[in-house]
Amino acid sequence: MSLNPQYEEIGKGFVQQYYDISDDPAYRENVVHFYSATVSFMTFEGHQIQGAPKILEKVQSLSFQKINIVITTVDSQPTFDSGVLIFVLGRLKCDDDPPHSFSQIFLLKPNGGSFFVAHDIFRLNIHNSA
Amino acid sequence: MSLNPQYEEIGKGFVQQYYDISDDPAYRENVVHFYSATVSFMTFEGHQIQGAPKILEKVQSLSFQKINIVITTVDSQPTFDSGVLIFVLGRLKCDDDPPHSFSQIFLLKPNGGSFFVAHDIFRLNIHNSA
Repeated sequence: MSLNPQYEEIGKGFVQQYYDISDDPAYRENVVHFYSATVSFMTFEGHQIQGAPKILEKVQSLSFQKINIVITTVDSQPTFDSGVLIFVLGRLKCDDDPPHSFSQIFLLKPNGGSFFVAHDIFRLNIHNSA
Repeated sequence: MSLNPQYEEIGKGFVQQYYDISDDPAYRENVVHFYSATVSFMTFEGHQIQGAPKILEKVQSLSFQKINIVITTVDSQPTFDSGVLIFVLGRLKCDDDPPHSFSQIFLLKPNGGSFFVAHDIFRLNIHNSA
C-alpha cells in the first residue's frame, strides 16, 4: 500500500485514452473494458449503476453519434492503495447540440500492472435554479 | 473492508456540515479538523498541498469575507474500505463577485466512528477557450 509517484502521468494518460475511445462511435463500447465486471460504480447524471454489464448498457443507450470532448483541466491525486483519483473538467459537444460544461471523476485502482475504474461520477455542469 | 450502506446520508450530511462551517468567516478555519495532519491531499485550482497545517494556511489565505454556497447536486458512492466518494456541483458567491459554478470532490475515509477527508479537489467551472 503506497503512493504511486507517476500519478500525474497515469491520470492524464488515462483521461486521454478514455475520451479517445468514447469519442469514436465505432469503438465507444470498448470503454467497458476499463471497468470491473462486478465492483465498479458509475453514477451518470445522478443514476447509479454497478458492474461492467450495466455500464455497457448505459453506454449503448447514449443516443448521440458524434461527440467531441475538449478537456479543460485534469487534476490527479495519488491514493494510499497505489490508485489515482482523477477530476476532469471539460466541455462536450454531441451532434448538433451546443457545447456543455461537464465534470467527471474517476477513481482508478491498481490491477496487476494496470488499472481499472473503480468509481466514475459524471455530471453536466447545469444549475437548475437562477 | 466493506461498503457502508449509509453512504448517501454520510455524503449529504458531510457536505452540509462542511459548507456551513466554511461559509462562516468566524468558524471557517475549523474545516481543518476534517483533514488529517499528515496524509490528506488538497488540490485547490490546480495547486496541490498535503496535511492539515498547509490546508489551514490555504484556508487562511482566502481573502473573501462573505461566501454563500448553494449546492446543486451531491453524488455519493461507497468505497470498499468503508469510505465515501462525494462529488459536489454548486455555485458560490464571494463578497460582491458574481456567482461562480464550482465542482468539489471529497474522498472520506473511516477513522474510528467518524470520517476524515483523505482527498479534496476543488475547481471553479471556468473554461479558458471559446
